[in-house]
Amino acid sequence: MKRLTLLLAGVATLAGIVVLATTTSRNVSAQGAAPIFGIKIPDGYRDWRFISVAHEAGELNDIRTILGNDPAIKAYREGTLPFPEGTIIARIAWRYVPSEENNKIFGHEQSFVPGEQPPWYLQFIVKDTKKYAATGGWGYAQFDKDGRPGTESDMKKCFPCHQAIKARDFVFTRYAP
Amino acid sequence: MKRLTLLLAGVATLAGIVVLATTTSRNVSAQGAAPIFGIKIPDGYRDWRFISVAHEAGELNDIRTILGNDPAIKAYREGTLPFPEGTIIARIAWRYVPSEENNKIFGHEQSFVPGEQPPWYLQFIVKDTKKYAATGGWGYAQFDKDGRPGTESDMKKCFPCHQAIKARDFVFTRYAP
Repeated sequence: MKRLTLLLAGVATLAGIVVLATTTSRNVSAQGAAPIFGIKIPDGYRDWRFISVAHEAGELNDIRTILGNDPAIKAYREGTLPFPEGTIIARIAWRYVPSEENNKIFGHEQSFVPGEQPPWYLQFIVKDTKKYAATGGWGYAQFDKDGRPGTESDMKKCFPCHQAIKARDFVFTRYAP
Repeated sequence: MKRLTLLLAGVATLAGIVVLATTTSRNVSAQGAAPIFGIKIPDGYRDWRFISVAHEAGELNDIRTILGNDPAIKAYREGTLPFPEGTIIARIAWRYVPSEENNKIFGHEQSFVPGEQPPWYLQFIVKDTKKYAATGGWGYAQFDKDGRPGTESDMKKCFPCHQAIKARDFVFTRYAP
């Protein structure tokens, strides 16, 4: 019986490690849906294809990648506007930090790389023209590194800013050539 | 006969457009192999999964993404070192430029995004411990936006710098968490 208990504890520990490895190195799982738009973290977003990259300075001070699901990538590559139903664009951000390791090797400050995950770690926009008719056909969602959704107040700030880029279907990011 | 000529011209034009679209929006095709290491641009690299992102300041002044083929992603996620045979890591870089479009909307200088492709647009490292035994098991390659490989002199500069990061199998980039 003791052996069984130890075995079970071992399995549980291993399972814990696997879960930890999955959430830290692959995909964060949503701890609920984002308010207003009811969006959860889409499965497998960390495996999506690459659209572009950016550094946001100032208060955000992050470095970010923008990935897209298959409809997003197809539309970007073919220049399709508006984006089709089902398009999801993911934005993953990290604190913008100097790489002391690289800089030591290069002999001067040169490299800036992803640091810790900020509170606004994950963002998604989801195209559903009927469901999100009031916000240009896009739903918005934000999650922290533990999968906790952003507040209702956060979510209300998305569309007013994206509205300025209506000519490109409210999407800021251009495809990196 | 005239109709056939016109038809052929039409097909050729269409083929030209398709090639252009492919090279500008998806994958650049190699115009030959990189010197010393004999590496060509791997098919489909622009569809590979995302590893990390960086801004290199100073003379390079670029913003870059790092993508990996399946063995690369698997090894990164599982923390496998050294990387297995067949690993290929791709680095795509663009000039680091402010986004005037975004900054105008935000009301201050904030966004830095990919600009033109620099002469060092594409770089690849390929793991083949036998073939590249003299350079830590990695072959190096560099291409410009038209797929032209870097010079022999460029290629000789890769390993001396990567050698400093021997503890992580000569790979600078860490997986973005």
